[in-house]
Amino acid sequence: MSQRVNRQVLLASRPPGIPQAEHFEIVTSPVPELQPGEVLVRNIYLSVEPAMRGWVAAVANYSEPVAIGAVMRSFAAGRIEASRDPALPVGTKVTGLFGWQDYAVVQGTAIERRVEEDDLPLSTSLGVMGINGVTAHFGLLELGQPKAGETVVVSTAAGAVGSCVGQIARIHGCRTVGIAGGPDKRALCVERFGFDAAVDYKTDDFAEQLAKACEGGVDVYYDNTAGAISDAVMAHLNVGARIVVCGTASVASWNPAPQGPRVERHLLVKRARMQGFVIFDHADRYPAARRDLAQWLREGKLVYLEEVLDGIAHAPDAVAGLYRGENLGKRLIRLTDD
Amino acid sequence: MSQRVNRQVLLASRPPGIPQAEHFEIVTSPVPELQPGEVLVRNIYLSVEPAMRGWVAAVANYSEPVAIGAVMRSFAAGRIEASRDPALPVGTKVTGLFGWQDYAVVQGTAIERRVEEDDLPLSTSLGVMGINGVTAHFGLLELGQPKAGETVVVSTAAGAVGSCVGQIARIHGCRTVGIAGGPDKRALCVERFGFDAAVDYKTDDFAEQLAKACEGGVDVYYDNTAGAISDAVMAHLNVGARIVVCGTASVASWNPAPQGPRVERHLLVKRARMQGFVIFDHADRYPAARRDLAQWLREGKLVYLEEVLDGIAHAPDAVAGLYRGENLGKRLIRLTDD
Repeated sequence: MSQRVNRQVLLASRPPGIPQAEHFEIVTSPVPELQPGEVLVRNIYLSVEPAMRGWVAAVANYSEPVAIGAVMRSFAAGRIEASRDPALPVGTKVTGLFGWQDYAVVQGTAIERRVEEDDLPLSTSLGVMGINGVTAHFGLLELGQPKAGETVVVSTAAGAVGSCVGQIARIHGCRTVGIAGGPDKRALCVERFGFDAAVDYKTDDFAEQLAKACEGGVDVYYDNTAGAISDAVMAHLNVGARIVVCGTASVASWNPAPQGPRVERHLLVKRARMQGFVIFDHADRYPAARRDLAQWLREGKLVYLEEVLDGIAHAPDAVAGLYRGENLGKRLIRLTDD
Repeated sequence: MSQRVNRQVLLASRPPGIPQAEHFEIVTSPVPELQPGEVLVRNIYLSVEPAMRGWVAAVANYSEPVAIGAVMRSFAAGRIEASRDPALPVGTKVTGLFGWQDYAVVQGTAIERRVEEDDLPLSTSLGVMGINGVTAHFGLLELGQPKAGETVVVSTAAGAVGSCVGQIARIHGCRTVGIAGGPDKRALCVERFGFDAAVDYKTDDFAEQLAKACEGGVDVYYDNTAGAISDAVMAHLNVGARIVVCGTASVASWNPAPQGPRVERHLLVKRARMQGFVIFDHADRYPAARRDLAQWLREGKLVYLEEVLDGIAHAPDAVAGLYRGENLGKRLIRLTDD
């Protein structure tokens, strides 16, 4: 075991905003011997998330910042290659916060989940069956509370969370409007993810297009962007609307908070609710969400798109690339065959 | 009955923002004969509300704008002087949207409530037992969901709604912080309404004072002002905070919405909820709220302050005066002895 070489992506410096390739470095180190209770996980897929911007930020946040010099925090999916935890035999497929590295030595209790859906690709355990899927499921159904016949608008609608939100809303009988950047993503929303309408926020007539797509008003707005995109949606709220604040991808820096049109009067006149959440608070809800998601996948009601980058060398620039909008689908890094 | 002369305050023109004296005119007209099912109410107290700004605004709102030339919409409390509704005998004390006038001829079904608490002054039926009290009760308890030991911050804390919110929060075991304008109102908050701390937003060191008063963070913010006052409070939210959007008194115009610091990141990182409401949606909750309020009044746990202006001539300038901050307590206009 000690002959194995572990490539690790470390956070080299604190990014002022979106982490760029230059804020990381790749090093190699030996894999340590296992202590009792530990397992060795061979990472097969690493996840790339917009939320990583927050994880490496120094400003107040919902989790401790990744330390300078530490392995970049990340969900990963892999296989147990050695085990000193009798409950976790070699060969078990698992997910957890194993970090951007080839191998992780962790306590057995740090395993987030055994992946038991053998009929689904392992990669889905990081996307539609992973944090993205459960985020979409919880945020939409618990906070958005969509009812059949209502209109649900989603920003970053072609993304890993947004595409799932739109499809879950549709499964619940809602009319769905996606907002995405560029003609390719806009087309994806309608053609692949089944949105009833989609609007490209990069066009000059975005506001007019959105108004047309939301003629009956907006009952639920699942917001992954904040910023000007959200300002445009707020103008169309129906009475009793729910705004789910899941992410703020369009805003480059929150320190200090940028200015925007105040929302209080909208919320008051429309008796609307705007609520933020962090999915990690709701881990008790993951199993039920995954049961729904797996069923919809098997029934063909839920589809997903992945963009797989081959090799750990892609990791340092991978988050910056998300914010450049260059990916189509859930971004993953594959380290080895599964 | 037809000899009676009715003084009426009409909306003479559409105010661009806060209605001023010049936007009203006082006229006299005869009181019409009653038709079957109608009653004649002699108004004793007229109410003056910050919300009247919205009622006379032409922009989209939660109620139809008061028409130019119509009697100003208002809650009033009075006594039935003539009746062609057998269910409502002469002498019954009632409240309703009787308007700014001496007499109202209305259908018996338009009576909002018979005032049956003979031990409480009739004036309270427009304030602490009226729309202000039920607004405070519903907004705080239903949307704010305060728990014992939590910190509740209230803006316009010396006002008719705010003072009631603070006391109800205290009754529920919360620590209360009031925000008010000027030393007199600040003192009222602590000395009369029992806030644990109060901060004057008109002082130069408001932000520092607020930070000190909210050292343990803010769990519930009951917002009657929006604007810069709210921006200061948002910096102190605890995880899971609830923001109740009840009014926007500090913002002179919402057309277009003024700029302010965006709130999305606060809401996300703090898993916070911001929700607007319009009390008229919740009329089914008034009786239960009034039972609580009457009990607390009788037990001496809830106190109130009224500012009574004598004579209908005060009406045209009365709303503007609220926004100038000149009143202490619930502003009422008394037309005759009760």
